[in-house]
Amino acid sequence: MKFSISRDLLLSHLNHVAKALSTKPQMPILTGIKLEVKTDALLLTASNSDITIQSTVSQTEKLVIEEEGICVLPGKYLLEIIRKLDANTIDFASFEENMVKILADRSNFTLNTLDKDAFPLISFDNSPLNLSLDVLNLKQVIKKTTFASSISESRMVLTGVSFSTNDSKMEAIATDSFRLAKKYMIFDRHYPKINVVIPSKSLDELNKIIEEIDQIVQIHFFSTKVLFKYKNLLFQTRLIEGVFPNTSSLIPTEFMTSLRFNKQELLSAIERASLFTSSESTNIIKMTLTNDNLVQITSTSNEIGAVLEEVNSLECSKVMPFQIAFSSKFFMDALRAFDSAEVSIHFTGEIKPFIITGEYDVNHIQLILPVRVA
Amino acid sequence: MKFSISRDLLLSHLNHVAKALSTKPQMPILTGIKLEVKTDALLLTASNSDITIQSTVSQTEKLVIEEEGICVLPGKYLLEIIRKLDANTIDFASFEENMVKILADRSNFTLNTLDKDAFPLISFDNSPLNLSLDVLNLKQVIKKTTFASSISESRMVLTGVSFSTNDSKMEAIATDSFRLAKKYMIFDRHYPKINVVIPSKSLDELNKIIEEIDQIVQIHFFSTKVLFKYKNLLFQTRLIEGVFPNTSSLIPTEFMTSLRFNKQELLSAIERASLFTSSESTNIIKMTLTNDNLVQITSTSNEIGAVLEEVNSLECSKVMPFQIAFSSKFFMDALRAFDSAEVSIHFTGEIKPFIITGEYDVNHIQLILPVRVA
Repeated sequence: MKFSISRDLLLSHLNHVAKALSTKPQMPILTGIKLEVKTDALLLTASNSDITIQSTVSQTEKLVIEEEGICVLPGKYLLEIIRKLDANTIDFASFEENMVKILADRSNFTLNTLDKDAFPLISFDNSPLNLSLDVLNLKQVIKKTTFASSISESRMVLTGVSFSTNDSKMEAIATDSFRLAKKYMIFDRHYPKINVVIPSKSLDELNKIIEEIDQIVQIHFFSTKVLFKYKNLLFQTRLIEGVFPNTSSLIPTEFMTSLRFNKQELLSAIERASLFTSSESTNIIKMTLTNDNLVQITSTSNEIGAVLEEVNSLECSKVMPFQIAFSSKFFMDALRAFDSAEVSIHFTGEIKPFIITGEYDVNHIQLILPVRVA
Repeated sequence: MKFSISRDLLLSHLNHVAKALSTKPQMPILTGIKLEVKTDALLLTASNSDITIQSTVSQTEKLVIEEEGICVLPGKYLLEIIRKLDANTIDFASFEENMVKILADRSNFTLNTLDKDAFPLISFDNSPLNLSLDVLNLKQVIKKTTFASSISESRMVLTGVSFSTNDSKMEAIATDSFRLAKKYMIFDRHYPKINVVIPSKSLDELNKIIEEIDQIVQIHFFSTKVLFKYKNLLFQTRLIEGVFPNTSSLIPTEFMTSLRFNKQELLSAIERASLFTSSESTNIIKMTLTNDNLVQITSTSNEIGAVLEEVNSLECSKVMPFQIAFSSKFFMDALRAFDSAEVSIHFTGEIKPFIITGEYDVNHIQLILPVRVA
């Protein structure tokens, strides 16, 4: 194995692939990045128990291949070395049985390789069951759903986002059973039936990698995994087994009253109102609709003190005395998922789920279950 | 107690005082900030077991005092509230026995006060034993010494910086017994005899607060504490008891050979050479002077691999084959303490302490003890 490569080009590819590096020492081979030097390209691959990422560097003047070969290098150290080098070009050459020399300007690194035969063989075949999404849409779906997944593994299926298609509609739903985030898309063609649950952590990693919003991501579905193809990158994640709960009946469609707010004003008021509710278990705030369109947000801590914030709603569909209590964290998470400057809250009752929508956030709903308070 | 104050003004003072807030729950009163409203000023005070900080806000159009009074408010929450408010002006008013109302725009906070009688009474008197330093000088002294203090409390006296005067010279020395940092200043007048050890942590906190380099800091020395007076700020820290070791004989004055380097080039090479030496115990690198002015820096990890970096010295006083091994961390810490673009390393022997100086860093020496390697 022998090749020269631009330092910046290699670093950008390594930064992507490194997202799949395992930090668990139980499987040492998964702390490695596999380098496959072919006649016309360099393939970089990393894999942990959840995701596998492969990035392809094509031969150009920035990658000069002299000799093919395969090796697995310790990922963390390879990345650190390339980061710390300020040379323009870096030379790689394997020597003896299990070593690789990395030369750049006046730096000379020797890295012991990991056992390349122990690296898992991973197929990146296409699936007949596939669809395409533009990066912007995919990033929106991820940003608006994953945070609402469960972080507890007691119900594994809730740690993922459910993706399902129905004719030309695709729905993405996440819920931890106290709140629910839903984003759907209508395509201009019918898609085959898809019904999978993708780990939220995998989607968050994918979201960090896909950047160029004018690009397309091809998504290939299999029974136990899903493959995202983006530019010269293959991103594969396992699916979560199990049946995602049917949530369609949970989302109310008729409302007692709806209030429209300036999103930032409401968010700032909630942030302040929740200052005394830092602990997870007691982050409950109350919202009271008094008269006209005045809304009071309150919280009390016996130990520290009390907060009262007042916000005017921009519009109120029906003025009525009304009080509801909910988790300030869930509410702030939900508000932050909206891109609109104005959001509406639709209430169905003092102890019934309410939903949030945004004027320009089409096909996007956040639902929160209130809590009973004395 | 009743006053109105500019939000930005209050926040800047609170940010300073908060550096002395205790995070230890054993003494709940020390988690509070004391507000003393006088006829013409607001005094903010916080204190933990090491340092006490008092900041004075004078009455201007940005502070309107209506009623004097004293209270102690939970520091963390007070700071969070002021940070999160976007109002221009904030009103404070005490009511009932033990509560304070904070009003700003449409926000209404009620804070339970802490017991003001439990707050320690701290004297900020002047001392006849005092001297003045400009902020720039003081910041330099702190930056060039504290990092070399011991972090182990097994010899408490080494967790501080020794300040001592001798006629018109003041010396600041820190050492953890493996390395030593020394910075001294020559004044244009004689100073009384001072010999104290100031906790390095306190100095680092002080360094974060003092900013305006055209200001003067007055330093007042007492037997068990030292008071820094800067603008409207009083910063007091306890001293460390015990006798600081006499280090004057440790610093060599005659050298076998001296090498001059571009600081950044040397630092980058050392950073790369230490990539495989991440653990504290094995961060040893070797420096070899081969011929002419070529220097090789090497480190080896049986597990990961090896690095060889080459750096040309700009000048070498005496060419001789020479090898020395030392902690890369100590060396990088020391190099970063220099402002000069070029530094010189002065060797006295392969297993003897060496020192580093910088062309424009007057009165500043870093010393490192090498280690024996096979």
